[in-house]
Amino acid sequence: MATNAKSSVAVVMGSDSDLPVMETCIDQLKDFGVNPIVRVISAHRTPDIAADFADHAAANGIQVIIAAAGMAAHLAGALAGRTQLPIIGVPLQAGSGPCGLDALLSTVQMPPGVPVASMAIGKAGAKNAAIFAIQILALADPALADKLTAFRKAQTQKVIEKDKGLQQDKK
Amino acid sequence: MATNAKSSVAVVMGSDSDLPVMETCIDQLKDFGVNPIVRVISAHRTPDIAADFADHAAANGIQVIIAAAGMAAHLAGALAGRTQLPIIGVPLQAGSGPCGLDALLSTVQMPPGVPVASMAIGKAGAKNAAIFAIQILALADPALADKLTAFRKAQTQKVIEKDKGLQQDKK
Amino acid sequence: MATNAKSSVAVVMGSDSDLPVMETCIDQLKDFGVNPIVRVISAHRTPDIAADFADHAAANGIQVIIAAAGMAAHLAGALAGRTQLPIIGVPLQAGSGPCGLDALLSTVQMPPGVPVASMAIGKAGAKNAAIFAIQILALADPALADKLTAFRKAQTQKVIEKDKGLQQDKK
Amino acid sequence: MATNAKSSVAVVMGSDSDLPVMETCIDQLKDFGVNPIVRVISAHRTPDIAADFADHAAANGIQVIIAAAGMAAHLAGALAGRTQLPIIGVPLQAGSGPCGLDALLSTVQMPPGVPVASMAIGKAGAKNAAIFAIQILALADPALADKLTAFRKAQTQKVIEKDKGLQQDKK
Amino acid sequence: MATNAKSSVAVVMGSDSDLPVMETCIDQLKDFGVNPIVRVISAHRTPDIAADFADHAAANGIQVIIAAAGMAAHLAGALAGRTQLPIIGVPLQAGSGPCGLDALLSTVQMPPGVPVASMAIGKAGAKNAAIFAIQILALADPALADKLTAFRKAQTQKVIEKDKGLQQDKK
Amino acid sequence: MATNAKSSVAVVMGSDSDLPVMETCIDQLKDFGVNPIVRVISAHRTPDIAADFADHAAANGIQVIIAAAGMAAHLAGALAGRTQLPIIGVPLQAGSGPCGLDALLSTVQMPPGVPVASMAIGKAGAKNAAIFAIQILALADPALADKLTAFRKAQTQKVIEKDKGLQQDKK
Amino acid sequence: MATNAKSSVAVVMGSDSDLPVMETCIDQLKDFGVNPIVRVISAHRTPDIAADFADHAAANGIQVIIAAAGMAAHLAGALAGRTQLPIIGVPLQAGSGPCGLDALLSTVQMPPGVPVASMAIGKAGAKNAAIFAIQILALADPALADKLTAFRKAQTQKVIEKDKGLQQDKK
Amino acid sequence: MATNAKSSVAVVMGSDSDLPVMETCIDQLKDFGVNPIVRVISAHRTPDIAADFADHAAANGIQVIIAAAGMAAHLAGALAGRTQLPIIGVPLQAGSGPCGLDALLSTVQMPPGVPVASMAIGKAGAKNAAIFAIQILALADPALADKLTAFRKAQTQKVIEKDKGLQQDKK
Repeated sequence: MATNAKSSVAVVMGSDSDLPVMETCIDQLKDFGVNPIVRVISAHRTPDIAADFADHAAANGIQVIIAAAGMAAHLAGALAGRTQLPIIGVPLQAGSGPCGLDALLSTVQMPPGVPVASMAIGKAGAKNAAIFAIQILALADPALADKLTAFRKAQTQKVIEKDKGLQQDKK
Repeated sequence: MATNAKSSVAVVMGSDSDLPVMETCIDQLKDFGVNPIVRVISAHRTPDIAADFADHAAANGIQVIIAAAGMAAHLAGALAGRTQLPIIGVPLQAGSGPCGLDALLSTVQMPPGVPVASMAIGKAGAKNAAIFAIQILALADPALADKLTAFRKAQTQKVIEKDKGLQQDKK
Repeated sequence: MATNAKSSVAVVMGSDSDLPVMETCIDQLKDFGVNPIVRVISAHRTPDIAADFADHAAANGIQVIIAAAGMAAHLAGALAGRTQLPIIGVPLQAGSGPCGLDALLSTVQMPPGVPVASMAIGKAGAKNAAIFAIQILALADPALADKLTAFRKAQTQKVIEKDKGLQQDKK
Repeated sequence: MATNAKSSVAVVMGSDSDLPVMETCIDQLKDFGVNPIVRVISAHRTPDIAADFADHAAANGIQVIIAAAGMAAHLAGALAGRTQLPIIGVPLQAGSGPCGLDALLSTVQMPPGVPVASMAIGKAGAKNAAIFAIQILALADPALADKLTAFRKAQTQKVIEKDKGLQQDKK
Repeated sequence: MATNAKSSVAVVMGSDSDLPVMETCIDQLKDFGVNPIVRVISAHRTPDIAADFADHAAANGIQVIIAAAGMAAHLAGALAGRTQLPIIGVPLQAGSGPCGLDALLSTVQMPPGVPVASMAIGKAGAKNAAIFAIQILALADPALADKLTAFRKAQTQKVIEKDKGLQQDKK
Repeated sequence: MATNAKSSVAVVMGSDSDLPVMETCIDQLKDFGVNPIVRVISAHRTPDIAADFADHAAANGIQVIIAAAGMAAHLAGALAGRTQLPIIGVPLQAGSGPCGLDALLSTVQMPPGVPVASMAIGKAGAKNAAIFAIQILALADPALADKLTAFRKAQTQKVIEKDKGLQQDKK
Repeated sequence: MATNAKSSVAVVMGSDSDLPVMETCIDQLKDFGVNPIVRVISAHRTPDIAADFADHAAANGIQVIIAAAGMAAHLAGALAGRTQLPIIGVPLQAGSGPCGLDALLSTVQMPPGVPVASMAIGKAGAKNAAIFAIQILALADPALADKLTAFRKAQTQKVIEKDKGLQQDKK
Repeated sequence: MATNAKSSVAVVMGSDSDLPVMETCIDQLKDFGVNPIVRVISAHRTPDIAADFADHAAANGIQVIIAAAGMAAHLAGALAGRTQLPIIGVPLQAGSGPCGLDALLSTVQMPPGVPVASMAIGKAGAKNAAIFAIQILALADPALADKLTAFRKAQTQKVIEKDKGLQQDKK
């Protein structure tokens, strides 16, 4: 049910400077009728809050956590070590350095036993994290599954129309 | 229910040469009582079978698909374009070249709209794909959630014992 | 014959946002008198159209397909799995991340059995894809071969003139 | 015609130490009934021979050139600058250094105007270079096109059988 | 004083499989008369123990912590978020993937506010972590400073002797 | 004591063009009441001054040296070879090339025996170098340790307030 | 003798678009009283001119060749294969792709037998190529050696003055 | 004159463990009749010796210095900062980490003003360093120039014979 789903996703980011990119994620979730809990929690600057958040996430009704961070992006992994809820990691390009590859490797190369599901670097990953969370929730929520089907159809249709538009321009 | 869960995960790999690594994944799923469907399907050499598999996966009762491939690892993305089930990608080190980074980037850098959840490269990713699939299924399966809790406790306990063992050796 | 050649090349791109770069390719083809079919087809968002396009490309008189995409660039590989026509891949820099290396590795590191011919990342690759397609067609089209010879002579001449210009500036 | 096709492909490598990898390419061509000209020509140690080879390749009936080299792999590019025949580059892992990425970038990142069609690094690329050459030749050679169709069917069949074998093993 | 110094360094590693490399570190510390506390603590599998260890490290008389881990190496960063003691990180090559670059970037690219001092990847870093810890302790421990001076002199002498040996061999 | 601490840190940079980034470091030190010695010394252009500086640093009362450089960043290593004081390296993005990875690897990959403690690339590393220097000095300076504790509390508080701010904005 | 030296260096670049960066090189040579031959020659678009230039360089009084190119930078290697004069390569960042790493690896990773002396990517390398050429010529030209000594002293002095300036600003 | 040339090249390496690779360099020099001075000097462990060596190299009759090191390879740069003799750097793969890319970037990315001429990573670079040194010396040594010409002819001949051998094997 949509109401139940509304509080089932948390979007956590390591710094409020990540918000401009992560709004793509939040907006995508809202388009599916899922109003996420949004938090700024730092694995390094507020580790107790991160621990507390992860420890009580399941009890607080959260089903999927999206965690975004840049540089040595530990946030997703830190939460993954404390809850068995699925954690989706969004590596962000931040600071100086190798184009977000640092955040990608810090997010995806988790040791055996404690998985994090990594999305692409930056905005594409932020949007896809929302969709992947919905894909998980939709397994047990037929209404959400229907919305997802509609979303994908619309997405397909948009490409078809751009393809048609291109043919028209060519005439 | 465990019986229902038994057929809910599919492990697909692009080549039978991926089997030695992916057995880590299959064995981990079986340890949780989930007997996965295991398939060798190539996005490039058997694209029709890949399409057919993805198109009917949901109807066939599959809830989560784990897709492993090396090099320009398209398998997970190809399936993700045809089903709204959650797809977990496992990038494998194969052929000559940059240490599995090719497979990682081909798996994780999915364009906005069609997510793949990437795990780490190789064996660690193979094992974690199984655990992440279980984490998804456990959201709706309390028995599986209990097994997951037990698994994580045992895993924690193993580290504690190794830590103790090290202290003993030092004496 | 030029008329026959006019419909022999298809330029396919994964998103209409790739058009500014790929116009270099289209214009280069037109300079050779080859008016390409231009399509926006996404391996992930319109997989059925991609399959249909590849399955009928040869029957529709297409002889060479140029496929351009960014990020986890699967388009060229997806088409290559469904037609035995030569596929030329153009990796594009898109989204956040490692400077187009993701698209390059996703395009070039094809597994044994299903080749994609990769060009350079971005505009240089877009232009060269057109020239390489002409090089293939010219094998069976003497008129096109003559145009190609003229194109290369002109290209050589341009460098010679720039070299001369530099000598003049120095006086 | 098969006889004509037999001398239509040249396989050139920068060093005889590349032969063990390139035999995959030569054998694959022979499987299609194409007996390639095989040469050891170094862009740096025998540049005159390289120039002479490229300058007369077309007149000698060659239609496609496969050029393989490691490290700062210039061979394919050096030939491409002297003939308008399609050049297929195979980057090889050689010497110390970054896993063949040096050869890949030296092969694929050709400047606008002079394309090289790059395959994957190493053995996979060696095999695919042969298949891609056949794909080009098959455009004007129906018998070769039929062989290619048969090859691809057999290749698909092999994956299907391995998939079946896996199902059997599981019983 | 040596006795006091003996418990002033902790060497923590994420897995007992890191021990063979980290023994280089432990042995080097012992050579300086510093008998380190050695622990196996996983940031992801035993996060509570990691938190507890870091929270009480200073009170337990520890002055410098050396933390070694591979892959998405979070251990050093996780401890750094919970104690103001200097943390020295040793990135290790582990699992499949990019040659320890994952561990290096996960260790060194710490966000502003919570530093980790990264050493080189693997054995060289393990040995240098010990020496760097001694360099810190030596600031307040003249006896240790003297040992360090002696160590460096011996090290210099060893290179001089190898240089001489080479001259002799040449004769 | 604060007065004593005031001259205990040196901030050395390879070029005055590094100053805009390194001011983050200098300001952070001053916030802790530590007024650093600031020098422009090039390992390559003023090697004698570098040697002289390192040789007399300890005698001049310096306890920790922060060395920042870009490209083939040798400064930190050059100083480390001549003093047993702890050297903190800050790799900077400079010139053309691989996003500061050149400076990072030149700084962190020190051979066994002569450690440099590397921070992150650029501004984050510049700030963290200051904090890490303070963490070292604080081991023997309770007043500084108290300032560090206050700094970290304030830092934690800032994240908490941004988190709260975000919750408010959402209402 | 200065007059003799004036025509002893050639600066060759693959495209006139490289001129803005290479003017740093040309100006540096002129500062030493060496007026270089400056040419635009493309290894791929004017291979005959490149061959002719290299074949006659020594006879034309050239002693050192500086060759600059971007992407799959073959120019330096192509010349090196045809003359035993020392070739200095300057890799340039051009087109899309990995930050000049393509040009660096194409320039530096020369196979055994045919060396190219690679400088840094971009402007730093352009300037250093000039200085390195002067260092070679100075071996047999005492006047040039004196200029080089003066240049280096001035360079050292400039750093010393910037260091002093910084101390002044601080007062 | 050969006798004079015999002491004109120095081969310096950072560790005696580099000797197996650098023997390729030493042997190549000897093949040209140049008996190099061979030294083990560490930029970090014997900095005074490195400084002394560089300061007196020219006076000692050395004309070209070849410097080989691995990891954060500072040796070539450290010498280049102290002598205006041409320095040829050989980056070596050593320790754990990114396949010698660390040594390459530490060697080649020298800041403007102090060039190092980098060769390829490992054995190929070791051999080419010798040849490049000979190319420099040959500018003022006609006998050496003749040997170089003979060397290159023999090298060309060897490739030609391997090419012929391949044609024979094929019969």
